[in-house]
Amino acid sequence: MSLLDDLRAAVGDGHLLVDADVRATYETDWTGHVSAPAAAVVRPGSTDEVAAVVAACRAAGAPIVPQGGNTGLVRGSVPAQAGEVVLSLSRLVDVGDVDRATGQIEVGAGVTLAALGAAARAAGFDAALDLASRDSATVGGAVACDAGGARALRHGTARARVAGLEAVLGDGTVVRRLSGLLKDNAGLNLPALLVGSEGTLGIVTRVRWRLVPALPSRVTAFVPVDSIAAAADLLGELRANVPSLEAVDFLLPDALRLACEHYGVEAPVRDAAIHLIVEAAAVADPTDELAGVLPDDAAVADDTAGRARLWRLREGQAEALEAAGESHKLDVGVPLPRLTEYLERLPAIIEAAAPGSRPILFGHLGDGNVHVNVLDVAPDSDLDEAVLRLTAELGGTISAEHGVGALKARWLGLVRGADEIAAMRAVKAALDPDAILNPGVMLAPPGAPAP
Amino acid sequence: MSLLDDLRAAVGDGHLLVDADVRATYETDWTGHVSAPAAAVVRPGSTDEVAAVVAACRAAGAPIVPQGGNTGLVRGSVPAQAGEVVLSLSRLVDVGDVDRATGQIEVGAGVTLAALGAAARAAGFDAALDLASRDSATVGGAVACDAGGARALRHGTARARVAGLEAVLGDGTVVRRLSGLLKDNAGLNLPALLVGSEGTLGIVTRVRWRLVPALPSRVTAFVPVDSIAAAADLLGELRANVPSLEAVDFLLPDALRLACEHYGVEAPVRDAAIHLIVEAAAVADPTDELAGVLPDDAAVADDTAGRARLWRLREGQAEALEAAGESHKLDVGVPLPRLTEYLERLPAIIEAAAPGSRPILFGHLGDGNVHVNVLDVAPDSDLDEAVLRLTAELGGTISAEHGVGALKARWLGLVRGADEIAAMRAVKAALDPDAILNPGVMLAPPGAPAP
Repeated sequence: MSLLDDLRAAVGDGHLLVDADVRATYETDWTGHVSAPAAAVVRPGSTDEVAAVVAACRAAGAPIVPQGGNTGLVRGSVPAQAGEVVLSLSRLVDVGDVDRATGQIEVGAGVTLAALGAAARAAGFDAALDLASRDSATVGGAVACDAGGARALRHGTARARVAGLEAVLGDGTVVRRLSGLLKDNAGLNLPALLVGSEGTLGIVTRVRWRLVPALPSRVTAFVPVDSIAAAADLLGELRANVPSLEAVDFLLPDALRLACEHYGVEAPVRDAAIHLIVEAAAVADPTDELAGVLPDDAAVADDTAGRARLWRLREGQAEALEAAGESHKLDVGVPLPRLTEYLERLPAIIEAAAPGSRPILFGHLGDGNVHVNVLDVAPDSDLDEAVLRLTAELGGTISAEHGVGALKARWLGLVRGADEIAAMRAVKAALDPDAILNPGVMLAPPGAPAP
Repeated sequence: MSLLDDLRAAVGDGHLLVDADVRATYETDWTGHVSAPAAAVVRPGSTDEVAAVVAACRAAGAPIVPQGGNTGLVRGSVPAQAGEVVLSLSRLVDVGDVDRATGQIEVGAGVTLAALGAAARAAGFDAALDLASRDSATVGGAVACDAGGARALRHGTARARVAGLEAVLGDGTVVRRLSGLLKDNAGLNLPALLVGSEGTLGIVTRVRWRLVPALPSRVTAFVPVDSIAAAADLLGELRANVPSLEAVDFLLPDALRLACEHYGVEAPVRDAAIHLIVEAAAVADPTDELAGVLPDDAAVADDTAGRARLWRLREGQAEALEAAGESHKLDVGVPLPRLTEYLERLPAIIEAAAPGSRPILFGHLGDGNVHVNVLDVAPDSDLDEAVLRLTAELGGTISAEHGVGALKARWLGLVRGADEIAAMRAVKAALDPDAILNPGVMLAPPGAPAP
């Protein structure tokens, strides 16, 4: 049989998509990038069907691109080469009951973060991980990229939420660890290796998610600060003195201005070198805890509408940027002690690589995660390389939470040693011996030129 | 040069131990088990020296057993075969400063959990992971076994605390990820694979540890409950209604009696089918939160001495057991929905395998982690096999937090599929191609008989 026949047998006729019109949405990612054409899109309805798709693709030597909500920025979820098979997890949307005794819930990989959060809240719990892209981004995608968002400061990234998972490895092995045992170190922890592996080792199909208790009292503050260094000091004070601290995001002035103009609102506080959005959540009102540490000119909201108004200036950045035109988007991380230097040097680096462009900078201060967005960039600029080189020079990472994807694979050597990358390749070969899972993502094809 | 000459060159004359008398403490684990004689004990003083030891042993084909505090129960840190080299991490005891902005501290692998906790507290933070063996157990050992202890209920196991680490892999590669970036998914997360790998893939030399805020108000309750099922229900209520919940351990009646007799004290509450030790910690006194959920006949302590008296009945189990004679110790986990059945069937299984023996059962209810201790067991009993088979039958794990070691390696197939174990072997071969790291630990030698 042909590959398409095998895929049809695996998932059923209605879930094999071959028409170009129907494929198009699966071949276009969140940034608007249109990929190479897929051989087909398959939408398996169970883990067994995922395994059957993997078997069919292995037999045919056809590469597979696993796809969740497709909200990535690095071309990790659309075909890099013509003829790849897009494996959409969009039908794995089963949401289990919250297990109150363990504080866990089992969900399909295609469940959105919004749906996960709603299920948790309905049972008096909290999913602990949330992203602005929550209505599209999926649990499987968050796990595959080890996403974190703003609340990783308190709760850790997706890694910390995975109490178990089920996945189909590149060699066809089904790893099934869904007992919900928080402590289970019988054998190598293959699930932990899969978290953040960007679909290069296996395809996550189900996740057992560790919830946290819902905290009824939540306060948000918008804080003007006069230097990055002072912001880092304030972060230290908050960490030490506000146990209910949940998030510390930041906006540089141009980003704040962009959002204010887009939404037609005044800035909530005075001008400053950097603005922080600080959130605390607790059983009892955490306002007093915060008040002891925050400056008097912070704007504080403890009601839902007021909090949403403050957060919109941060979470609405993607929307405001989209309205302002096409933007380059790089998701990087820099250790806090180097962040001042990074943010001071970055504008000149950007201007040199993309003259006349407009950097819009914001991110998660608590973990040094900077979302570098640049408007008005000429198509042939060397912006990515220039920004990633500066990031690496200051001990940072070329990917904080979006992954390396195909877009950044050739720069992985900036932040990982050659022998460590060789070790990664050896692990990849061990679990995906036919190299059919997401080829070219994370690990550049052997022999590809180094930057 | 000979192996010993190479090792001497690697670590210096004073840190190569070859005399049988000096080696003896390194060849005897916490259970009193005396291992096969080591070729030598080496005590490297830096990561570079660890790498030099690995190189020397690779060249000579000599297996290495990494050793931390040697508090394990499964023969994972002493030689399984004569001629292995014990690599003690006991000189890697550097304790860095707490980085307040990130809430992290960098420590050598040989630092004890007690020292880690003290350093955290001195800076107004909390290490979040604590074990009864804290004065001996090391950070490196906790990471290698993904240990969790009582407070994993709230804070997760060691895995959740690792913000970065440095390790020497079996192939000599040094993995160094100490930037402290909470979000850094550039490439496969080899550190996450190393957590819980029991020294079979690499030797952890340094760890960047994620602290949590210190919580000043701490309350402990000792709670009599009339059935395991009722205890699981109470756990669910506590999870949902007590956000400050930190630990829920348990003791069955024989364990409580043993500790009371050993310490010469009365039980703090009435007789019951199971006793829970519940701990909550918060900024403000969590007594009211707890009071709404706990039964009236619980004993509650919010002062240091009172709390210590209650916890001693649980943490003193190892000491009480030691005073009572030699005991078999198995660390297993069972999903909460099956725990009633497990604890009901276990005594008969134990009696059949070891007639006349005395089971002493306690553990961490929050994660279904049961420490099975049995006194008065005949040397040739099949107790381990009988207990592990029941555990696996009920969907549990043969190792919760102590690891598989050499002792349980032949039973790994009870809880992991043959293809998943094959995948583990492939990963092992990728990172330790000469198979010199902890051979026989976790993964039984190929061809060893299945149970």
